Amino acid sequence: MPPSYDFAAEIADCARAVEAALDRLLVEERLSGPGPAARRVVAAMRHGSLNGGKRLRPLLVRQAAQVFGVPAEAAMPAGLAVEAVHCYSLLHDDLPAMDDDDLRRGQPTVHVAFDEATAILAGDALLTHAFALLADETCHPDPTVRIRLVAELAAGSGVGGMVGGQMRDIEGEKGGFSNGDIEVMQAMKTGALIRASVRMGAILGGADPRALSAMTAYAQAAGRAFQLADDILDVTATSEAMGKATGKDAGKGKQTLVAQMGLEAARRELDTIVNDAVMALRTFGPRADGLRATARYFASRNS
Amino acid sequence: MPPSYDFAAEIADCARAVEAALDRLLVEERLSGPGPAARRVVAAMRHGSLNGGKRLRPLLVRQAAQVFGVPAEAAMPAGLAVEAVHCYSLLHDDLPAMDDDDLRRGQPTVHVAFDEATAILAGDALLTHAFALLADETCHPDPTVRIRLVAELAAGSGVGGMVGGQMRDIEGEKGGFSNGDIEVMQAMKTGALIRASVRMGAILGGADPRALSAMTAYAQAAGRAFQLADDILDVTATSEAMGKATGKDAGKGKQTLVAQMGLEAARRELDTIVNDAVMALRTFGPRADGLRATARYFASRNS
Repeated sequence: MPPSYDFAAEIADCARAVEAALDRLLVEERLSGPGPAARRVVAAMRHGSLNGGKRLRPLLVRQAAQVFGVPAEAAMPAGLAVEAVHCYSLLHDDLPAMDDDDLRRGQPTVHVAFDEATAILAGDALLTHAFALLADETCHPDPTVRIRLVAELAAGSGVGGMVGGQMRDIEGEKGGFSNGDIEVMQAMKTGALIRASVRMGAILGGADPRALSAMTAYAQAAGRAFQLADDILDVTATSEAMGKATGKDAGKGKQTLVAQMGLEAARRELDTIVNDAVMALRTFGPRADGLRATARYFASRNS
Repeated sequence: MPPSYDFAAEIADCARAVEAALDRLLVEERLSGPGPAARRVVAAMRHGSLNGGKRLRPLLVRQAAQVFGVPAEAAMPAGLAVEAVHCYSLLHDDLPAMDDDDLRRGQPTVHVAFDEATAILAGDALLTHAFALLADETCHPDPTVRIRLVAELAAGSGVGGMVGGQMRDIEGEKGGFSNGDIEVMQAMKTGALIRASVRMGAILGGADPRALSAMTAYAQAAGRAFQLADDILDVTATSEAMGKATGKDAGKGKQTLVAQMGLEAARRELDTIVNDAVMALRTFGPRADGLRATARYFASRNS
């Protein structure tokens, strides 16, 4: 990667590439199994994932892989798998029984555009297909690498990761969460999949245990920065810029660090965390500039 | 396997072993990931799976593996993965937005005992953990085998398999299904996971392509027998014996072959299909007696 690394160009290029890849992938012919893919579920999978998202998780997979010299294209299948998990989680979190959101990125959510049953099934199908993507040899030629990716994604997205974090978040709405409880919840709800993304990129690149450990430290700090920035945005941003309802976390009694520590303290904490993320990468040189820029971006984004 | 093969003993032994293994597995300590497993989700996962089920899918994995000389214990992790997928599908299918069932095996369903959000998350967690089980080296020492199991389970349970079948079933309630449509729906909704179970057992046993093809033919016939027997039971059984509401398929306008062809023709068809299943195993000798007995059991069960 040249010293004149252009983050804006990379995030745009990655988002475009992921959108195009999902568009090619989420079609009936490519989703068939023992039987033909159900058309209505495929349509809902498309609605829930082809939405111009920023594709930050595939970006992290690609940037982490890049640290070890893996070309962007070779990190795409693993990136799509993480993105499929992220999209499934949004479909299910938006359901009336969960966060009950009607809009996402300015569009009707899947259960509004289709119905609840279809949204549940499309989420299930996206989650399931994430593992199919990792199992396919186009993901990586070595089955040992592929099975490690499966283990990593399952750990990050299951009951000890993202799903567990969502449950804790719902329980936290009832109140009584300490700062420590909020940090554990956020580390699981958002952080676990960010951690999995970075580690999957490193695993694709054949990282040794020491390098994987440094990448994990980066990922944990970056994940905290992402979530804290999100909580700050929820307090400060306008609904228009976010493309969804804002201020609703506080309105629903959701526990956030910003609510507990106040806005200014949260902003100082965010600076510290981004610095931790960058420091974790100190042994990697310019190939890690992408990850460094992403950690700073997490903290500075306004939507 | 001795000539005096005792099916009743094997199904009871397998059900007991699966129940005990799930009981040991579904605990917070063993479900942790980057964070500690969320207690409420773990409790709901237990409620939705430790229910004295017949564990027919792990039985098929074990019996198929046995054809290739694999001991029952070595087939257990893959069997648990398929059972976790089966249990997740029941949790989600029972939701108000889907089949809206309050009872399963005489007990309140998960969304009744907990709530809808928890049932959705517990289903998601069971599905995710199925892949974690396959990725773990205790499942099989060879990563090439494990990654094939991941691919097989994902194909069987995704939008071109079980999930797609559930969508088609819901759409079929609106009517207008031909016999052919019903067969495709059933082959996906129930058949795909039965097919995956048998194939996963064969893959564990290192089946060559010819043997895998014969096992697949068996699985497809066994799956059809299972579903047709279920449809017949729905018409003939009492609610008490089934532990759930019966006659409800017809009541909800669900399309079944029994409704289309009549009870007597359906029973004759069932005999033919069981015979097809047994014939598909003709090259395998006495080690396949378990699978033969299971196909006959599918057709003769009364609950």
